[in-house]
Amino acid sequence: MAGLPKKEEADTKEIDMSSISSSKRHNQNPDYKVGVPSKQNLFKEFTYTVKETFFADDPLRHFKDQTKSRKLILGVQTVFPILQWGRGYNLNKFQGDLISGLTIASLCIPQDIGYSKLANLDPQYGLYSSLVPPLIYACMGSSRDIAIGPVAVVSLLLGTLIQNEIDPTENPVEYRRLTFTATFFAGITQMTLGFFRLGFLIDFLSHAAIVGFMGGAAITIALQQLKGFLGINKFTKKSDIISVLCSVFGSMHHGWNWQTLLIGAVFLAFLLFAKFIGKKNKKLFWVPAIAPLVSVILSTFFVFVTHADKKGVAIVNHIDKGLNPSSAHQLYLTGDNLLRGFKIGAVAGMIALTEATAIGRTFAAMKDYQLDGNKEMVALGAMNVVGSMTSCYVATGSFSRSAVNYMAGCQTAVSNIVMSFIVFLTLLFMTPLFKYTPNAILASIIISAVINLIDYEAAILIWKIDKFDFVACIGAFFGVIFGSVEIGLLIAVVISFAKILLQVTRPRTALLGNLPGTMIYRNIQQYPEAKNVPGILIVRVDSAIYFSNSNYIKERILRWLVDEEEKRIKLYRPRIQFLIVEMSPVTDIDTSGIHALEELHKSLQKRNVQVHWFLQDLKTLALANPGPVVIEKLHASQFSTTIGEENMYLTVAHAVHSCLPRVVEEA
Amino acid sequence: MAGLPKKEEADTKEIDMSSISSSKRHNQNPDYKVGVPSKQNLFKEFTYTVKETFFADDPLRHFKDQTKSRKLILGVQTVFPILQWGRGYNLNKFQGDLISGLTIASLCIPQDIGYSKLANLDPQYGLYSSLVPPLIYACMGSSRDIAIGPVAVVSLLLGTLIQNEIDPTENPVEYRRLTFTATFFAGITQMTLGFFRLGFLIDFLSHAAIVGFMGGAAITIALQQLKGFLGINKFTKKSDIISVLCSVFGSMHHGWNWQTLLIGAVFLAFLLFAKFIGKKNKKLFWVPAIAPLVSVILSTFFVFVTHADKKGVAIVNHIDKGLNPSSAHQLYLTGDNLLRGFKIGAVAGMIALTEATAIGRTFAAMKDYQLDGNKEMVALGAMNVVGSMTSCYVATGSFSRSAVNYMAGCQTAVSNIVMSFIVFLTLLFMTPLFKYTPNAILASIIISAVINLIDYEAAILIWKIDKFDFVACIGAFFGVIFGSVEIGLLIAVVISFAKILLQVTRPRTALLGNLPGTMIYRNIQQYPEAKNVPGILIVRVDSAIYFSNSNYIKERILRWLVDEEEKRIKLYRPRIQFLIVEMSPVTDIDTSGIHALEELHKSLQKRNVQVHWFLQDLKTLALANPGPVVIEKLHASQFSTTIGEENMYLTVAHAVHSCLPRVVEEA
Repeated sequence: MAGLPKKEEADTKEIDMSSISSSKRHNQNPDYKVGVPSKQNLFKEFTYTVKETFFADDPLRHFKDQTKSRKLILGVQTVFPILQWGRGYNLNKFQGDLISGLTIASLCIPQDIGYSKLANLDPQYGLYSSLVPPLIYACMGSSRDIAIGPVAVVSLLLGTLIQNEIDPTENPVEYRRLTFTATFFAGITQMTLGFFRLGFLIDFLSHAAIVGFMGGAAITIALQQLKGFLGINKFTKKSDIISVLCSVFGSMHHGWNWQTLLIGAVFLAFLLFAKFIGKKNKKLFWVPAIAPLVSVILSTFFVFVTHADKKGVAIVNHIDKGLNPSSAHQLYLTGDNLLRGFKIGAVAGMIALTEATAIGRTFAAMKDYQLDGNKEMVALGAMNVVGSMTSCYVATGSFSRSAVNYMAGCQTAVSNIVMSFIVFLTLLFMTPLFKYTPNAILASIIISAVINLIDYEAAILIWKIDKFDFVACIGAFFGVIFGSVEIGLLIAVVISFAKILLQVTRPRTALLGNLPGTMIYRNIQQYPEAKNVPGILIVRVDSAIYFSNSNYIKERILRWLVDEEEKRIKLYRPRIQFLIVEMSPVTDIDTSGIHALEELHKSLQKRNVQVHWFLQDLKTLALANPGPVVIEKLHASQFSTTIGEENMYLTVAHAVHSCLPRVVEEA
Repeated sequence: MAGLPKKEEADTKEIDMSSISSSKRHNQNPDYKVGVPSKQNLFKEFTYTVKETFFADDPLRHFKDQTKSRKLILGVQTVFPILQWGRGYNLNKFQGDLISGLTIASLCIPQDIGYSKLANLDPQYGLYSSLVPPLIYACMGSSRDIAIGPVAVVSLLLGTLIQNEIDPTENPVEYRRLTFTATFFAGITQMTLGFFRLGFLIDFLSHAAIVGFMGGAAITIALQQLKGFLGINKFTKKSDIISVLCSVFGSMHHGWNWQTLLIGAVFLAFLLFAKFIGKKNKKLFWVPAIAPLVSVILSTFFVFVTHADKKGVAIVNHIDKGLNPSSAHQLYLTGDNLLRGFKIGAVAGMIALTEATAIGRTFAAMKDYQLDGNKEMVALGAMNVVGSMTSCYVATGSFSRSAVNYMAGCQTAVSNIVMSFIVFLTLLFMTPLFKYTPNAILASIIISAVINLIDYEAAILIWKIDKFDFVACIGAFFGVIFGSVEIGLLIAVVISFAKILLQVTRPRTALLGNLPGTMIYRNIQQYPEAKNVPGILIVRVDSAIYFSNSNYIKERILRWLVDEEEKRIKLYRPRIQFLIVEMSPVTDIDTSGIHALEELHKSLQKRNVQVHWFLQDLKTLALANPGPVVIEKLHASQFSTTIGEENMYLTVAHAVHSCLPRVVEEA
């Protein structure tokens, strides 16, 4: 440790390097006792729990030791990060943002038009939603890579849920009003979760469940596109696979339009080929990115020239020109529709959050910057609240566009501003150009976009890693395609919770054995080299001991005892006279857990008295390495005095070392 | 190890005693690798999980390796344990059972009459419920100490819930029918839980919640007794404390009857004094046990002699003579009342189970015999199903009577048969004797009985041990006394679940340090002696890594890294170049968890490249002691190759030993 100032030596808690190397020659020092942390006062403990639960990321770190005016500036910068990174913005960065902005704009315009159909809205509403929300997000969000706008799954979810309440063709005005209301409450939900730092709630939707849910939603969306793709007029409003296939095959003989099918099929092939190229060569990422716009232009020109619309090819026909009209007065703020809007908005808002958070985290990890999940939620919420007042529906981060954004070299959220500007120009000047765009091409674009959401590789990996996760994944998947989006979600959440509860109710226990020649004790199933210690049973409990599992743990340990004793007696080995419970993984214990330990202790003593009443010391319970919380509670409950302080050991090795000489050999 | 046959030496996995003692002189052998358990096939794994979840107690153990006819006999004995223990029954045991049976009979008769009032039923129904169910239980149950019959809390719960549906004074017949229906479904619920081995579900009601719930119920019951105790005629039907106190004080000026109050108060004082004596001297346990019957006899005689009933002292007046009439035809098996009966029965059945299971376990632990919880549930369920057809309402194990039973020296369930026989005689011959028994005495008996349920010592202990548990306890308590029994239950369950989820969402992490002179690494908060290792950060994760906490864990570790780095740089210590994650307590990991580890790994690598791009080896992630499930999943997901097999160590000491020489000192 040469080169370090001497005077610091005493202050630091760091160990000397030489001492560690030399410790190889030492023995385990048996002088250490199990540490009992100094009693924390209640308020401190409470503060700590609250902090770790809600402020785990220490969001106020930067505000420490600052002047008041500085704090104010920092506060404003926290709400509007653009004020922070904007000061360091330069032309170099803008170059990256411009290119990526243009790329995602070319991708988003045809997608927006298509997705608004999923939400049963006119095409301009999709464009509106790519104009305002990205601007708001650019000012308030911290992710540098996310591309904001309408996305397929949320559009479908919103469309299905709202259509259950109001028919979009019969009452388009009410339908739109409910959509804006739902968007408003989606934003409010997101802001509330973020503001009260409840962002961790969305973690309860597991990765596996999301994979299954997204895959199912992608297939549902793709199937819905068959309407546009095949030019079917009469189509079911349900989203499950059976209703859709019935619709498709029922209309086979009279409802399909071959011209539509031809256009759709040709361009779908083109789009998929472009995707394939992009996948093969990462540098050609722009090929699949601009392919949709190219298809739209080509097919529109083709329809315009051939007058295919006269032959039954459905076209977009009309997109309102002009910018977002205000919709603030259209929100339902009273009555039943308020409640409905709230319910739908809360669900859609949560799903939108899940998607945006996953994207944000992924890219933040790739570029290694920190995202404050809760702050992000406030930003996303604010953008949807503003959106709901400017004729937008729920916007969030899009998987496909964010990936393109990243690959095109975006530097900051300015790429979203560029995209928004292009959409602005489109709305002002170019909407008439989409008149002859065939619906089939939109269907093809959506199909080729959602195919990416079917992540079968992830599903295979999940199968390999964790079967229970796979059940959640496949449950969500089938729930969505055979039931509906909501049923799939419900299944996913229920299975995920059941998994947690199962683990908490039936934790693992393991027998430990000694690795010969060491003082290490390991699971004998994992380490076949590990050997039993004569007369001593060592059990490790792999979980906190709570009311939900305390009885199980107690009984499981007694069962280990009986089983092992039988085995050992058959082999003429000494009876088990000491039970050592390795407590390292027992991170917490509650009153039920302490009761269970007490009962275990009593049970051992009784057995002792009944079976070997001539020997007082048989079947002693020893605890190895109880953690700080556990030891504190054992003390509080007097259990440590019940079994005796001397029966708490620093490590299993210490416990064995102390018990082994006392093992009595029997005839 | 002298005296052991030589040939066994190789077969057993036991280690040689001398090898362990000599291991003290050895060093940790660095040759051991982290064990990877042989891949289990899916079916085996599934079977294992199912077995541990539903058959944790291995109930079929005795059936192994038996002939068919023997299996049949064992099967019958399993359902009717009386056939097993009955064969070894003798006069000696009967002596104990006779005395204890007589004692609990003298206690149960007045209690039964009182409790049936809590359930808004005529007094004979309480006696009926002490006749049939104990007989059935004696044949099917395995607890030797439990005393079966109506209990205060279940009677109150049943009374409150059924009275919400049908008015007991206006429609006594329908009310009774619904009671029997509820009893029937309580039995069915109990049998179903037991048969499908779902008994662990009742473990979700934590000890703390039960303490609070019972305390609240006791106070509610005691307050309800003020009606009989003060001789009030108009009394609220609600059970919350506010309504009851309003009733009591509203009727103060005209409704109280001083003769009633006098009788009640005198005998309550007597009962409490008897209780006090019993507590002081455990040998005089029979004093509080027979005190209620003595009070009944004395007070009845007193009323009969003084004609106090003419002066407004309410008396029992009439108890139907004769044995249980059949009620099988009275069950509602169709319509709305079926559903109501089912709902009420399911709740009452669960609560009854909780009480009986707690009692069964307590006494089984005291006498060290094993109880199969699920089999017990089948027995309790069967007894209630039969009970519902013989005019009984829900019976279960009574805390107070079981304790008396135990102290009076009961040996087997025969004491229940004795008690049942006494009740049988009472119903046949003695009911007219209760004509002049004042209601006030019943109120006094109930009050003195339920006082035991207020376990304030347990509540204080819970406060000391675990604050969160205390919140569940006090929540249940206030829920019951200010709301209702159901609200209290609901609060208890919700808080208990919230606790589990909180622990799973925000697990603890700890920094480890070296105990100087050893190779042991321990939490530096718990062991102030523990020292940091230069250039290395050792973090322990205290929980399985699941979707619900994976992000938190990742971010928490990164925060430890930043915090510690700051600290160490201030002290001119080497930067942190290695991160060792101690995985011992990580009992399981899922796909989200592996993702989090991958992101952590990426994050470290990025930091490395950004901050110290001249040094390739900084910020390496090492894992110490991953468990069998974890290592299997790390392999399945290829993560072990991502971070490198060589970065998985057997212990923290091994990891430090390997990393320390590579720590680079900086200027």
